[in-house]
Amino acid sequence: TGDFARSLAVRLVRSGFRVVVGSRNPKRKASLFPAAAEVTFQAEAAKKADVIFVAIFREHYSTLCDLADVLVGKILVDVSNNTEINHHKESNAEYLASLFPACTVVKAFNVVSAWTLQSGARDGNKQVLICSNNQEAKRTIAEIAQVMGFTPVDMGCMSSACEIENIPLRLLPAWKIPIFLALGLFLCFFTYNLIRQVIHPYIREQKNKLYKIPIEVVNTTLPCVSYVMLSLVYLPGVLAACSQLYYGTKYRRFPDWLDQWLQHRKQIGLLSFFCAALHAVYSLCLPMRRSHRYLLIETAIKQAMEKKMTIWVEEEVWRMEIYISVGIIALGLLSLLAITSLPSIANSLNWREFSFIQ
Amino acid sequence: TGDFARSLAVRLVRSGFRVVVGSRNPKRKASLFPAAAEVTFQAEAAKKADVIFVAIFREHYSTLCDLADVLVGKILVDVSNNTEINHHKESNAEYLASLFPACTVVKAFNVVSAWTLQSGARDGNKQVLICSNNQEAKRTIAEIAQVMGFTPVDMGCMSSACEIENIPLRLLPAWKIPIFLALGLFLCFFTYNLIRQVIHPYIREQKNKLYKIPIEVVNTTLPCVSYVMLSLVYLPGVLAACSQLYYGTKYRRFPDWLDQWLQHRKQIGLLSFFCAALHAVYSLCLPMRRSHRYLLIETAIKQAMEKKMTIWVEEEVWRMEIYISVGIIALGLLSLLAITSLPSIANSLNWREFSFIQ
Amino acid sequence: TGDFARSLAVRLVRSGFRVVVGSRNPKRKASLFPAAAEVTFQAEAAKKADVIFVAIFREHYSTLCDLADVLVGKILVDVSNNTEINHHKESNAEYLASLFPACTVVKAFNVVSAWTLQSGARDGNKQVLICSNNQEAKRTIAEIAQVMGFTPVDMGCMSSACEIENIPLRLLPAWKIPIFLALGLFLCFFTYNLIRQVIHPYIREQKNKLYKIPIEVVNTTLPCVSYVMLSLVYLPGVLAACSQLYYGTKYRRFPDWLDQWLQHRKQIGLLSFFCAALHAVYSLCLPMRRSHRYLLIETAIKQAMEKKMTIWVEEEVWRMEIYISVGIIALGLLSLLAITSLPSIANSLNWREFSFIQ
Repeated sequence: TGDFARSLAVRLVRSGFRVVVGSRNPKRKASLFPAAAEVTFQAEAAKKADVIFVAIFREHYSTLCDLADVLVGKILVDVSNNTEINHHKESNAEYLASLFPACTVVKAFNVVSAWTLQSGARDGNKQVLICSNNQEAKRTIAEIAQVMGFTPVDMGCMSSACEIENIPLRLLPAWKIPIFLALGLFLCFFTYNLIRQVIHPYIREQKNKLYKIPIEVVNTTLPCVSYVMLSLVYLPGVLAACSQLYYGTKYRRFPDWLDQWLQHRKQIGLLSFFCAALHAVYSLCLPMRRSHRYLLIETAIKQAMEKKMTIWVEEEVWRMEIYISVGIIALGLLSLLAITSLPSIANSLNWREFSFIQ
Repeated sequence: TGDFARSLAVRLVRSGFRVVVGSRNPKRKASLFPAAAEVTFQAEAAKKADVIFVAIFREHYSTLCDLADVLVGKILVDVSNNTEINHHKESNAEYLASLFPACTVVKAFNVVSAWTLQSGARDGNKQVLICSNNQEAKRTIAEIAQVMGFTPVDMGCMSSACEIENIPLRLLPAWKIPIFLALGLFLCFFTYNLIRQVIHPYIREQKNKLYKIPIEVVNTTLPCVSYVMLSLVYLPGVLAACSQLYYGTKYRRFPDWLDQWLQHRKQIGLLSFFCAALHAVYSLCLPMRRSHRYLLIETAIKQAMEKKMTIWVEEEVWRMEIYISVGIIALGLLSLLAITSLPSIANSLNWREFSFIQ
Repeated sequence: TGDFARSLAVRLVRSGFRVVVGSRNPKRKASLFPAAAEVTFQAEAAKKADVIFVAIFREHYSTLCDLADVLVGKILVDVSNNTEINHHKESNAEYLASLFPACTVVKAFNVVSAWTLQSGARDGNKQVLICSNNQEAKRTIAEIAQVMGFTPVDMGCMSSACEIENIPLRLLPAWKIPIFLALGLFLCFFTYNLIRQVIHPYIREQKNKLYKIPIEVVNTTLPCVSYVMLSLVYLPGVLAACSQLYYGTKYRRFPDWLDQWLQHRKQIGLLSFFCAALHAVYSLCLPMRRSHRYLLIETAIKQAMEKKMTIWVEEEVWRMEIYISVGIIALGLLSLLAITSLPSIANSLNWREFSFIQ
């Protein structure tokens, strides 16, 4: 009779199923459930149902042991989640199966939130990952999920339960290494640029250029990080090709580090784009700064004092025009790459189009 | 034999169903339909079919009353839409059901456009919302929708028909309040800034600064709107938590205004980001303006006249560097929030990842 | 026993199907397949299976002719792709059907990559396009695809096989004309601006302004391209309306060139936005250039020499403020259009909302 059970009952009733809710205290809880759902004692509910959703915590599974006789031959759906990744040795579903060997246990619906259940699968992620050792039971639950408006995804046999239970607990696992990599590179290049642009002139010429730290030093650091990250996107593909050529087969598994690296290319590329975009914004902000204005006026005054009428340096003009022009084109191309990495756009491209753009 | 009927027939024939089209003038209309679809008189068509799609306007439902005998026990699918929200007291489907009490009426396919039917559900929104009081009929129509390549979504019993009929008529309902809020805030802050930056100096010092209106006044207004909107995103969550703590339960419904507010947070946040992004573009444009150039040159000339060699003010330099630096970082973070609000990305995140980013 | 067959077998076994793999050399190949899949000689495999996936190249179809007797009455699924668009006169599936007239041939799974098969349809495009002349066989394969986690899309009868086989080979077909159009327009306007801004002053006044080519000439060219492209988005709609009014019917087909044009509007609009966005970035970069700084200082020195204290031109100030202000607003509105063209956002809008935004 928890939050999840309530949302599940609402959704099942709406989809036209007959629902019986088992509770230790049916009278007090009945008001929380839709009128069409019958709320009764656990044993009675178990008797009446063919498919039983076990919406209780793992610690309380053993309280169901009294009902073992009633449950024989029925399908138990384990919808539970853990609070930590790999918290227990065996997954909740496997533990439930070991407690009730006479029942068929199916793992499902744990990746769906109570909110999605109630809002009716119109928005949000609609996949329901299902696994079980019994094909028949798996198909029954898949059909129920389909009628409820979800997309059942077959995850194979019970040994996948552990993986399914870990999914709602993961926290951007693919981004961890790329983000630490980007931060590490940023720190290295920032230190180098700090020494070169601020500390060195201070020690050698006693010039106070500390004001350069928040913008100029950061702005020379960002493109370095972006470049190195971009090269790290294309390097592993070359290494993989070399390895295939060297061993003369494409069926040999790559070493683990290379495999990991190949799988993180998308994230590394997006971080590279993020650094490049920040570099563009920082660069565009340069002429807004007070210091830029002061230096400009000071140069003008100096020139006026010395009665020099022209300060045009053709080489510097050209260098800057070409820098900026190439920079804009590079940013435009990187933007295209970033846009095609959006899931909804990537899905509308076929493999040939995707490789063409990459 | 209208546009919708034609597209529907094309799609049904393509999906392998036998289609009979009922018309008052079968000979003239036959050429508009695919060859595999039989076009005949209404009564004959009704006799031959088990599932009848009623693709006529609500006003003409009564013309079918002559066929009442033939229709007994068949499934009538109401695909009609209204021209106004809540135009009639009862929904079209309920009206149809009241005219033909011996038939089973199902509301479906009204949210699908004739264009989507013809293009074959490969692109575009593929959901078909279905409701009916008869579970069996609902399942039949859901299966037809599935074979046609659509995703049936069960919306419960007939009382939902009204809601389903209103869906194609809604016009960004979730955006109305946030947009008016943003416009209201913009007007308030714009008036304040106009008085402070243009009218006040004009009255006190007779300085004509009207040229500041299109860019500078707008540019000081936008971040104010953005800040207030951003705070309005996080405020209702705090109020909701306080209310839960005060009443000591999470099962008590929030008052309506708070509920509405909680549901509009995403839109308010996106408008806040839009204002912040516009502020960034406006700020970046400041040094492009003629007025900026003129003021710069005038300062330079003044300094040169007075033989002052330096105009460096350390405090102002630092203030500006920090302003810009913090602004860029804030915009970068807001961009991440905005990107995760794209449906295709939000769907690929689990609840824990989504809250982490928020 | 190729790559695709292996991925297919892995996926089928995972979804609970019994899989027998036919090979000419079962002993050597068995190690490549999952343990649950039986690898045996082709004739034996064909005997044991009801649905046979023909995962071999078109050139080798004839090698199956020895098995013709065993295959009678079975469903053959053609999963093959070509290497060129319209490579052969008849599609692979039709060729297979002509070789085995006693079998039912279904075209399916060719748009799914081996990678998507193995990763289990959790990400990526999940559509499986299916066509066949036999409704029953088509439905069987559609059910298999559904159990495997894919979304079957019915493409009608066998004559669509050619179209389905061309899909994985297409390379952004909808973008070709718009991109050549944009490049053509860019070249025209670039030449015009080059003559006007660089060559003309050089010939007439011997002024070397070549440094303007990389940024200033490009920057005056981009908005011209963007404007013309934007007008080309709205023009065909007007022409189509005129044509409907002229002929007094909406059932008359538009001429081919107009039809093509109407279908490319989205791509033309996005390229127009891309040019506008590049123009914005180029414009923002103008004050960063060395040449801008030099011209500014030179003007200041000149003014100081001539003892002119003010250079303020009210008209120029206003013109620039209004230019920039209107430009930002236009870019903001175009951005909204571009965002709503993302598939995941367009799918969440109904027709009325979409036309409102357009």
